[in-house]
Amino acid sequence: MSDNNIIQNYKMKLLEDLSCEVLISEEEKRSITDLAIFKTFPKGTILLKEGDYTNETYHVISGCIRSYMLIDGSDITTEFYTEFESFSPTCAVNNTPSNCFASSLEDTLVIVSTPEMEDELLSKIPALESLCRKSTERLIARQQQSFERFRSLTPEQRYLHLIETRPDLLQRVPQYHLASFLGIRPESLSRIRKRLAQK
Amino acid sequence: MSDNNIIQNYKMKLLEDLSCEVLISEEEKRSITDLAIFKTFPKGTILLKEGDYTNETYHVISGCIRSYMLIDGSDITTEFYTEFESFSPTCAVNNTPSNCFASSLEDTLVIVSTPEMEDELLSKIPALESLCRKSTERLIARQQQSFERFRSLTPEQRYLHLIETRPDLLQRVPQYHLASFLGIRPESLSRIRKRLAQK
Repeated sequence: MSDNNIIQNYKMKLLEDLSCEVLISEEEKRSITDLAIFKTFPKGTILLKEGDYTNETYHVISGCIRSYMLIDGSDITTEFYTEFESFSPTCAVNNTPSNCFASSLEDTLVIVSTPEMEDELLSKIPALESLCRKSTERLIARQQQSFERFRSLTPEQRYLHLIETRPDLLQRVPQYHLASFLGIRPESLSRIRKRLAQK
Repeated sequence: MSDNNIIQNYKMKLLEDLSCEVLISEEEKRSITDLAIFKTFPKGTILLKEGDYTNETYHVISGCIRSYMLIDGSDITTEFYTEFESFSPTCAVNNTPSNCFASSLEDTLVIVSTPEMEDELLSKIPALESLCRKSTERLIARQQQSFERFRSLTPEQRYLHLIETRPDLLQRVPQYHLASFLGIRPESLSRIRKRLAQK
């Protein structure tokens, strides 16, 4: 499917989803789709570097963004953002230089938003405020659970949870990125995979 | 200071802070303070158990709440919530049984809120919507940074960061809870402290 077709499909799906949640007029629908800025990042594009300033949030429509940190020369994956997930760098919220990097692991199509665009949209369609707040609250809960899980599970349990909840990542993401995401070395991930295969 | 005095001071501070951020009338101020439900938990109270359902969020006015998980008999601290921090169990947002426990490490005074109370307040004072959304976004950024830090720092670096950012916890919280919060065993924390003292 071409990017244009994906964008048209996405706009329709977005408006359909929104219509289920809040009452919005045709005019309001137009302000939403008019404001949306789409960007494509070919595979391997660096979207963000440590020290950069940005106020952009990326809502992934297709593809995969990886956020990572370089610590003493080690590349540590902090998150993968795929379809319908949003990558909002902490620096965009805090107005500080970025502490992380981000790049596209695949050709990636996103909607870009900024706090200014958000404010503009929400002042035009106040009914969206409560929807946004609630979706942000759900995002916090999800993030909190990921952190709790990372703290409390063994590497093998983390890997099993990944298989269960994000099986697509196993196909899409190189092993060494998966390993650092799980907080282990690539050799340990290989050992875990072998052990599980023998069971 | 008695709880009543603390509550009065807190209400005044809350309204002062809010007045700086949004224009609110005297009547709106009253709806805020009228709605607020205060609760005190004596030290050692279990606020939440694994499997419980709750829709309550606790905004700490004084004291300390510890959230933790019991994994194969090990008690793993996931967070400490002290003055002006809010403990919103993920189960309250997701409407699922709790995956964690919470208890008060000190006598603790909180404001309790529920989604219904939030909705009621925000429908009365829509100007608060945007304030709430932005504070939730800041909370996400903070949480994201904590997780990134936990993933990417060594235990010693995590401990140094704790000293720098939350020195009060070192006085308030038993060593073994601090150790599990840092993702290490109590013996490892002792070794780190000794090593740093010798520097």
